[in-house]
Amino acid sequence: MRATTIHGTRDVRVEDVPDPAIRRPTDAIVKIAAGCVCGSDLWPYRGENPIQAGSTIGHECIGVVEEVGAEVSDFRPGDFVIVPFCTCDNSCPHCLAGVQSACVNLGMTASGQGEYALVGQADGSLVATDGVPDPELFASLLALSDVMPTGWHAAVSAGVTAGGSVVVVGDGAVGLCGVLAASVMGAETIIAMSRHESRQQLASAFGATHIVAERGREGAKAVKEITGGVGADAVLECVGTDDSMGAAFAVARPGAMVGFVGVPHGVELPVRKMFQKNVGLRGGIAPVRRYLPDLLDLVVAGRIDPGRVFDLTLPLEEAPEAYRAMDERRAIKVLLQP
Amino acid sequence: MRATTIHGTRDVRVEDVPDPAIRRPTDAIVKIAAGCVCGSDLWPYRGENPIQAGSTIGHECIGVVEEVGAEVSDFRPGDFVIVPFCTCDNSCPHCLAGVQSACVNLGMTASGQGEYALVGQADGSLVATDGVPDPELFASLLALSDVMPTGWHAAVSAGVTAGGSVVVVGDGAVGLCGVLAASVMGAETIIAMSRHESRQQLASAFGATHIVAERGREGAKAVKEITGGVGADAVLECVGTDDSMGAAFAVARPGAMVGFVGVPHGVELPVRKMFQKNVGLRGGIAPVRRYLPDLLDLVVAGRIDPGRVFDLTLPLEEAPEAYRAMDERRAIKVLLQP
Repeated sequence: MRATTIHGTRDVRVEDVPDPAIRRPTDAIVKIAAGCVCGSDLWPYRGENPIQAGSTIGHECIGVVEEVGAEVSDFRPGDFVIVPFCTCDNSCPHCLAGVQSACVNLGMTASGQGEYALVGQADGSLVATDGVPDPELFASLLALSDVMPTGWHAAVSAGVTAGGSVVVVGDGAVGLCGVLAASVMGAETIIAMSRHESRQQLASAFGATHIVAERGREGAKAVKEITGGVGADAVLECVGTDDSMGAAFAVARPGAMVGFVGVPHGVELPVRKMFQKNVGLRGGIAPVRRYLPDLLDLVVAGRIDPGRVFDLTLPLEEAPEAYRAMDERRAIKVLLQP
Repeated sequence: MRATTIHGTRDVRVEDVPDPAIRRPTDAIVKIAAGCVCGSDLWPYRGENPIQAGSTIGHECIGVVEEVGAEVSDFRPGDFVIVPFCTCDNSCPHCLAGVQSACVNLGMTASGQGEYALVGQADGSLVATDGVPDPELFASLLALSDVMPTGWHAAVSAGVTAGGSVVVVGDGAVGLCGVLAASVMGAETIIAMSRHESRQQLASAFGATHIVAERGREGAKAVKEITGGVGADAVLECVGTDDSMGAAFAVARPGAMVGFVGVPHGVELPVRKMFQKNVGLRGGIAPVRRYLPDLLDLVVAGRIDPGRVFDLTLPLEEAPEAYRAMDERRAIKVLLQP
């Protein structure tokens, strides 16, 4: 099949690779209807994470079940499914406690930027739609494989409540989905920290009530003014750098919680400040499978349209351009069509 | 008056100092019936926090209101009161949100190891008992000025729930009060990590169902065995060192929360591990005033007896011996009688 592979820093290619095959009886193979590039793919792309040269890349997709292993009982070829980026048995103690991203059988969807994806723990991981969905819904369904549940997890972790105030640090696709999550949860004040006009516009469309373009001290000052001098009840950290984490703690009111979903890179947590202000931190890899059924209902009912984060659609063969566009922040998130 | 003062590392004295005087119209002066040494007093005693040589020390006490400032309306001379170690107006946005320890008028009770204490924001801070209490209750009432609300705050911050599993790291007075808090909250499994027999016994009396004497990897292994291989739902970190924080994260199950109340000294938080396991951290300086009324009810009703953490009572003049006994871990916590 054709699939995207990574060979080095800023070197991704679309190549012929062997078709994925069932390795375990709990596996499934999904023929991809739409895949995409994840913000976290940019870490290896930029040379900041180690890679195995020539390996396939991509872990988010939707599509049609092509083949299932002998122990897969809930899915059969032809089912249209959403594929979570992390796979789980959905039955171990951690899954039952809602932390499917720490499943004892945790895995990662493979070759999601190709023609076929290999999905482990299919029964525990996949969620089927009711028949083949309208292609107009594809983008929003694809967003459910990672970016929307991740933004949702930031909001859940931060303890967003109806009527409360929320700051979202990060205007990537996850941050924008965090804005959407806070809006669905009924937050009254939603402040998106963003300097990019197209992202500001989408944040507003997703429910942001305020945009703060300033960073650092000026940004914190602006948030304080909006929140009556108090700071935000809940803060969503959706980047993962030391600067963004610092910004998150700077805008949190005493007693607030920072929900973090950006994979931390070089972050040193301000433990004494956390102690003095009673500001907590919670989050991590999103337990996609936990949120997927409810989020699917919201998409199908037309209540959320997270697919709007895809502001560029390219054929699979142009995956290298998809990476460039995201790396250079010309695109928020790129959908790839096999 | 006579009061305890600190002059240098392991140099505390009981000396004549000027009587405290009302400085602000919201102040009160309390004639101390019982004071005590706090675990946090050991940091300056051991030379690990800067001090001002000759200053009074001590911030926990109970006693009788002696004098009030012109703007104090809820208390009058003769009232028997519990004095929180941190004082607050109990009316600012942070207080109203239950974070009285971040009050915009936050202060610290002064000269609590003396004959008279100076208490700021008296109306917002003090809580009166119903008449002069039975002296047999003094120890438990004194525990309400810091150590019991702090253990309680650890349990609240860690999200202890009825039926859940809890690990308490630290067998000082705060940790032991954390065990008591978890017990009142209905936790089913309460694991106290302690190597000292007298503290193990008190932990059991306070409701610990298991004692783990091992530390490091062995300690984490023991907790895992007790919790069926899963780890604890909630962890109370009641020490404040890097080792104790590491122990707390090592025993937390994925999705758990670590509640921390030990003033952090040299702590580096394991942010990547927190992310991978979705283990959160929340806590800080305890908002004593928030919990005081309810905890007072529990003490008066005989439902909790946190005063048992005082395993040594000395006259005020022997404050230096009180410090030595706690420094050398011969005593859990020492009550001082003026």
